[in-house]
Amino acid sequence: MLAATPLPPYYAVIFTSVRTETDAGYAVTAQRMLDLAAEQPGYLGEESARNEIGITVSYWLDLESIRNWKAHTDHQIAQELGKSTWYRSYRVRICKVEREYGL
Amino acid sequence: MLAATPLPPYYAVIFTSVRTETDAGYAVTAQRMLDLAAEQPGYLGEESARNEIGITVSYWLDLESIRNWKAHTDHQIAQELGKSTWYRSYRVRICKVEREYGL
Repeated sequence: MLAATPLPPYYAVIFTSVRTETDAGYAVTAQRMLDLAAEQPGYLGEESARNEIGITVSYWLDLESIRNWKAHTDHQIAQELGKSTWYRSYRVRICKVEREYGL
Repeated sequence: MLAATPLPPYYAVIFTSVRTETDAGYAVTAQRMLDLAAEQPGYLGEESARNEIGITVSYWLDLESIRNWKAHTDHQIAQELGKSTWYRSYRVRICKVEREYGL
């Protein structure tokens, strides 16, 4: 359930959000975006959790992979629905992972 | 509830974990560590969510602030308890936040 990523350096996109009360297809689209992201070139893995806020961290080989995924047509449509309908607020942080360790 | 961080660059520590079944003071210590982290020099904010996995992202001014927090005595004790008792597995990823945007 934790992402098995390669040795750094690689990139992370930290997406944190507060949802509205409106469902309107959210769960289906969110799952579809996770599945679709996993098919993209440069995708390395993903970790998600939600209670009061949602946090999804996706891992990528490089900045170009992140740009391409952001520009993917289906993802663009989902991003617009996110802004208009599903999210009260969100932050996207693009990060270079410099070091990793764990248990 | 989302962290209000300054303009990049700054640093993020992505801590993702899978818990054991053992509570043994986990909730109290986890909250105390969040409170204590917030008092450290260079601390910029924090975001947490947990359901199947836990994700805590803390934000820091620089790598030195992260090193100092990792070495803090009370935090060291909590880290040992985490390894021995609370976490089945975890990953720590140290990242440089290069870009941020949102709604």
